[in-house]
Amino acid sequence: MKAIVQTEEKVTASLQLQEVPTPTLKPGEVLVQVKAAGINRADLLQTQGNYPVPAGASEILGLECAGVIVEAGDTENEVGQEVACLLTGGGYAEYVAVPQGQLMPIPQGYSFVEAASIVEVACTVWSNIGMLAGLREGQTFLIHGGAGGIGTFAIQMGKALGATVAVTAGSAEKLATCKELGADILINYKEEDFADVLKNKADVILDIIGAKYLTQNVKAMAKDGHMVTIGMQGGVKGELNLGHLLAKRGTISATALRGRDNADKARIVRSTIENMWPLLDSKKISHHIDHTLPLAKAADALQKIQDGTITGKLVLEI
Amino acid sequence: MKAIVQTEEKVTASLQLQEVPTPTLKPGEVLVQVKAAGINRADLLQTQGNYPVPAGASEILGLECAGVIVEAGDTENEVGQEVACLLTGGGYAEYVAVPQGQLMPIPQGYSFVEAASIVEVACTVWSNIGMLAGLREGQTFLIHGGAGGIGTFAIQMGKALGATVAVTAGSAEKLATCKELGADILINYKEEDFADVLKNKADVILDIIGAKYLTQNVKAMAKDGHMVTIGMQGGVKGELNLGHLLAKRGTISATALRGRDNADKARIVRSTIENMWPLLDSKKISHHIDHTLPLAKAADALQKIQDGTITGKLVLEI
Ligand SMILES: NC(=O)c1ccc[n+]([C@@H]2O[C@H](COP(=O)([O-])OP(=O)(O)OC[C@H]3O[C@@H](n4cnc5c(N)ncnc54)[C@H](OP(=O)(O)O)[C@@H]3O)[C@@H](O)[C@H]2O)c1
Ligand SMILES: NC(=O)c1ccc[n+]([C@@H]2O[C@H](COP(=O)([O-])OP(=O)(O)OC[C@H]3O[C@@H](n4cnc5c(N)ncnc54)[C@H](OP(=O)(O)O)[C@@H]3O)[C@@H](O)[C@H]2O)c1
Repeated sequence: MKAIVQTEEKVTASLQLQEVPTPTLKPGEVLVQVKAAGINRADLLQTQGNYPVPAGASEILGLECAGVIVEAGDTENEVGQEVACLLTGGGYAEYVAVPQGQLMPIPQGYSFVEAASIVEVACTVWSNIGMLAGLREGQTFLIHGGAGGIGTFAIQMGKALGATVAVTAGSAEKLATCKELGADILINYKEEDFADVLKNKADVILDIIGAKYLTQNVKAMAKDGHMVTIGMQGGVKGELNLGHLLAKRGTISATALRGRDNADKARIVRSTIENMWPLLDSKKISHHIDHTLPLAKAADALQKIQDGTITGKLVLEI
Repeated sequence: MKAIVQTEEKVTASLQLQEVPTPTLKPGEVLVQVKAAGINRADLLQTQGNYPVPAGASEILGLECAGVIVEAGDTENEVGQEVACLLTGGGYAEYVAVPQGQLMPIPQGYSFVEAASIVEVACTVWSNIGMLAGLREGQTFLIHGGAGGIGTFAIQMGKALGATVAVTAGSAEKLATCKELGADILINYKEEDFADVLKNKADVILDIIGAKYLTQNVKAMAKDGHMVTIGMQGGVKGELNLGHLLAKRGTISATALRGRDNADKARIVRSTIENMWPLLDSKKISHHIDHTLPLAKAADALQKIQDGTITGKLVLEI
């Protein structure tokens, strides 16, 4: 089969379409012919040598895709079934082996391109905010980077669950996007300190900044608040005042999806289908694709992520 | 009624037995004639001005007691019922008003003295380790200060739940006590670094040290680990490496029991009765009283806590 191969270590531009062996199936896996593969910032980090591939995973890039089952292996799935897939790697290719627990239906009315690019963000946001932090109706939900890929999904999910949604972003334009998606409290982090605006009010915080916001996030936290860090765009080492955290009975988690084992991923995929797919099927959560490129243009696609010129998702079509 | 009153701010020795008004009942409360009142380190901190009394709580010391209901108020309890009580204050007295959700049965075969001094530790350890961190069979449970009041209960609970229990303590003698109670891994923190011994192994950590152990606790944490800080004997401000926490998908909570509202306390009390009382009734968890003193000797009792010469619990008899 054809797949994207990195020919020079740490050089994103060295990605090339090459002939490689088609994956063979392990027990419990199906072979999917990839029609579209979603692009994530983590892919860029991986090409730069900053995101180690988990043991046993494909060396090929790509954390999500959509396509058609062409071999069902020892599973009860059917050849010809159209699926969206959460991957541990391998999406930038014509074929990928997928553990059956990571198969998802295509949301109603979704194209392969749309389906391929909603999986990672839906599983990430739901597993952290729904399953781990347990966001409930009436709570206040603070989202950092509200206009980003994670943020735009999180805003809509928060509103669907009945939360008051607060967001941070770096421009009036981005905050307008957040407002359109339903955000209630808009904070331009270049002009205001979000911790002053939300002091003791945020029941759940979705953080992508890390160290730089740690003290402020604890300040913004409400009693019994829960902050989940999934990105560290503002560094890893911060000062934590455990006394302040204790005064709020607060909780801080930091998680990632990719390194989880198959059973854990299957648990998350099941819960995401159950809780998020109805919101996609009924268009309560909308999904924005910036544009698509052919598989061979993977290097160009990651360059655009690097440049930061994209709003919404980039997708490779195969 | 007679109760212990502090006559000089921040002076523990100024505690005196005085005549004060008997409490009047709010809706949902009963009046308990106190037979025994447990003593906690927090009481000492309160006399020193380092533990603010939550709004609306009694100014009188005492977070736990046992006794007999003498007025049932508007509740369905009965006069004459013998009860153990989780208090927000007021235990160092002849009578105390108790919200009905904070009443517990006297464990089988327990005296008032024994019952009065097991409530706070049982509710604290179970709410944090059972309810919040969800300790399960087969997991590794690290307890700091294994020979302390919290630690001795936590060891036995951990073993009853089927966990492997690791403890830290400052002497061979204290570690021997921990071993007798069932601890599997004994670490003298003056001689060894617990984070080296337990690197990546601790699924649940009960921490009473705070800042000083923060980095080491994250190092000791296993994948999906959960640390709960309930004391800060080693300071409040520590450095947190969120990257290390994320690599483990780790969670850090810091909590306290006293500031919770009545509904939250009732939830904890219910779950503690359901899950811990059978272990007390069947003597799977044993409970050690150092000695008892009359109510009038409260100042002496707190002085002994200060001196650190007590192993097990001190109790006031009324
Ligand atoms: N752990 C996981 O499992 C997992 C999974 C998926 C994604 N992630 C991580 O989550 C993060 C977001 O992913 P994404 O796909 O949404 O990326 P994205 O689309 O590039 O969005 C990032 C957003 O961060 C905002 N931002 C930058 N600095 C900020 C600051 N100081 N305060 C508030 N917002 C700020 C940017 O908005 P402005 O231009 O307005 O600043 C941008 O909208 C990334 O770090 C990614 O690696 C983690
Ligand atoms: N948040 C809450 O709701 C709540 C409720 C109850 C208690 N607490 C807190 O929990 C803590 C323990 O309470 P307790 O009643 O068990 O007190 P305790 O009986 O005095 O026990 C404290 C223990 O800490 C140990 N210790 C001191 N320094 C240590 C170190 N560097 N490493 C490991 N162990 C160390 C001591 O043992 P060595 O002599 O061997 O050092 C001692 O056994 C206190 O800080 C208390 O305020 C909090």
